Amino acid sequence: MNMNVSNRELMMTLGIAARQAAGLLALAPAQQKNEALLAMAAKIRRSAADILSENQRDLANAAAKDLKASFIDRLTLTEPRLEAMAQGLEEIAALPDPVGQVMAKWTRPNGLEISRVRVPIGVIGVIYESRPNVTADAGGLCLKSGNAAILRGGSDGFHSSAAIIACLQRGLDIAGLPRTAIQMVPNADRDCVGLMLEGLNGTLDLIVPRGGKSLVARVQQDARVPVFSHLEGICHVYVDKAADPDMAKAIVLNAKMRRTGVCGSAETILIDREAAERNLKPIIRTLIDAGCEVRGDAQSMAADPRVKQASEEDWGTEYVDAIVSMKVVDGIGDAMAHIARYGSQHTDSIVTEDEAAATRFLTQVDSAIVLHNASTQFADGGEFGFGAEIGIATGKLHARGPVGVEQLTTFKYQVRGSGQTRP
Amino acid sequence: MNMNVSNRELMMTLGIAARQAAGLLALAPAQQKNEALLAMAAKIRRSAADILSENQRDLANAAAKDLKASFIDRLTLTEPRLEAMAQGLEEIAALPDPVGQVMAKWTRPNGLEISRVRVPIGVIGVIYESRPNVTADAGGLCLKSGNAAILRGGSDGFHSSAAIIACLQRGLDIAGLPRTAIQMVPNADRDCVGLMLEGLNGTLDLIVPRGGKSLVARVQQDARVPVFSHLEGICHVYVDKAADPDMAKAIVLNAKMRRTGVCGSAETILIDREAAERNLKPIIRTLIDAGCEVRGDAQSMAADPRVKQASEEDWGTEYVDAIVSMKVVDGIGDAMAHIARYGSQHTDSIVTEDEAAATRFLTQVDSAIVLHNASTQFADGGEFGFGAEIGIATGKLHARGPVGVEQLTTFKYQVRGSGQTRP
Repeated sequence: MNMNVSNRELMMTLGIAARQAAGLLALAPAQQKNEALLAMAAKIRRSAADILSENQRDLANAAAKDLKASFIDRLTLTEPRLEAMAQGLEEIAALPDPVGQVMAKWTRPNGLEISRVRVPIGVIGVIYESRPNVTADAGGLCLKSGNAAILRGGSDGFHSSAAIIACLQRGLDIAGLPRTAIQMVPNADRDCVGLMLEGLNGTLDLIVPRGGKSLVARVQQDARVPVFSHLEGICHVYVDKAADPDMAKAIVLNAKMRRTGVCGSAETILIDREAAERNLKPIIRTLIDAGCEVRGDAQSMAADPRVKQASEEDWGTEYVDAIVSMKVVDGIGDAMAHIARYGSQHTDSIVTEDEAAATRFLTQVDSAIVLHNASTQFADGGEFGFGAEIGIATGKLHARGPVGVEQLTTFKYQVRGSGQTRP
Repeated sequence: MNMNVSNRELMMTLGIAARQAAGLLALAPAQQKNEALLAMAAKIRRSAADILSENQRDLANAAAKDLKASFIDRLTLTEPRLEAMAQGLEEIAALPDPVGQVMAKWTRPNGLEISRVRVPIGVIGVIYESRPNVTADAGGLCLKSGNAAILRGGSDGFHSSAAIIACLQRGLDIAGLPRTAIQMVPNADRDCVGLMLEGLNGTLDLIVPRGGKSLVARVQQDARVPVFSHLEGICHVYVDKAADPDMAKAIVLNAKMRRTGVCGSAETILIDREAAERNLKPIIRTLIDAGCEVRGDAQSMAADPRVKQASEEDWGTEYVDAIVSMKVVDGIGDAMAHIARYGSQHTDSIVTEDEAAATRFLTQVDSAIVLHNASTQFADGGEFGFGAEIGIATGKLHARGPVGVEQLTTFKYQVRGSGQTRP
């Protein structure tokens, strides 16, 4: 890198190159993009030794830093993880191409034919932590949806990401697409993130942050361009008085314990007072038997002496761990009021055999995903049938819920006439 | 107003009340919202004398200020203008209710039924200039789409807007909806606008600015919440070599001159060099005969001595007047490069009998609305069949093009299961 070039100039150059690439990508046929994705997967498999050796450099640097074991685990690449990365790119290639799809078409009385056609968003910035696999995921999803990508991974994974980016760019080459379709911020300086949040002089259309709460909070706070993100997933399961007790127990256990580290895992269980007697004890026992700590209100504590006392803070906490808060509520209205107050508009579920109660819950709870008689862990692009996703959005506009290739597109109106002028 | 209450407290109170109202509006049946809209229209008709008298107060204050005639015209209310306002509300009542529409529905292999259901956005802030009629328009559109509205009109129309808001709130009363569904910022202090742009502590979901470029630029620059807007409409008509000359002449004339003050009016005409000989003179003559000033490049000037010289600035200017810039270009590629450089991603049209050229233009020009063989003046919600609109958006996300009641909604995923847990 030329040291006379400031980071501002460097990032603006990246932005202009991305914008130019985006113009070509928007027109690239599905076959060409898929060819690139398959070539990327093949190149990652062929380059395994190089990538793992670059990953060892990152791991050696990280070892000197006294980082958490979970951090080191996410940073570590292995042969099976590289294979999963390659397969992920092949799966993205197999998805239908959203670009060019006609979403709606109608003819006006004056004969104008109006079509609403899916088009790429343009240039997408992805800011993520030191998880090298995100590099391939994000690059692949942006390419499939016809967008240019500017990727900025955590500095501790810099060499690993650079090695992966080299494979992605080789895949672009092979398919005759510009290498600038997927670019990486070429240094680990923090001010480059700030420049991305400003929008790179109008060349960046959207930012997707992938990572923990502090990263997402910073992006949400400072970004001057739209952001697809969720700050946290404080998901609830409400066990209604008309719930089937066995179903309730199974759904609560799955919603909390299937994987505790995903954003769709439940953090609070609300139990209707009218059926607390038949639900509270078995649900608590099931959770504790599975290794979950339960923090509850007075009635939950009375139901099982192993329940610890929940504080006010617990109701608004995303544990991301085998801990759950539990509360007895006065019916569905009280449950929905609790969710409105403490929830994060991510994913909430009601368990009930009462259709009217289910409809009320699905209608009134203001979250991206609301479920009836199903686990909150279904909050996932793959489970929705969208294929790979870049995250879950809890904002209200454009993309809400799982963000897959379709959600990484926008639309334009194409109007075909035969000389119409407006009276 | 209690002078002990700071504007910050005042605006936060408005925001909280709006959020509460939004919860009720989201559940209000179409019939109830329509009843309110019809009652508002009736009340405006019955209150004509009061509204006109409040408007006289505003006009008297404005008279002391040496304002432009066009400003005074927009501020002025008359009996016919009030009648148009009432009819506008009745037309909104007649539109289909977007809320609750199932946009898509599918069943997963595990039996989960997923529906994508239209829901209101929540609380919408509308910031506009001293045009009292926007008060009724914006309030009506927000109500129909199930959103609470916080309206902040220009200070010179304060008394007029307050009189109209009183009618809207009376309509809400009659239909049994909360008066806080449509609120007006109760003073003309400028810092209240700043507080809206900050998002009123998370109670404001979206801002729609309606007004001139300086208003929209300020909102776009400072808003911390999503904005639906367009800064300007620098719309182009490209006359291809394969254009029918009579059609080209008619479309150019209409696109520029039907109404010069609307955002969809054309500002620049691009003529393909290969057919300049048969198109340039007649198009220039038609425009000048209609009273339009033409500013052109050397070849346009050579075609007609009445053409003035265009400066570099002309290509990026939205005249909002009977002035047009004109340039001869080297084919469709050059035309699209000009549009990419100087356009505002609003509305652009190609005139050609060549289907391949039309498809290329419609696909590649990155504007919200692209037309083939039709006037740019069709850029309008009514012309698209959307009914009334609150404006045209040129942002890429969520709402693009005309913003009608449907565009003022978002969606949620409702998932119905029978006890599914995730493996």
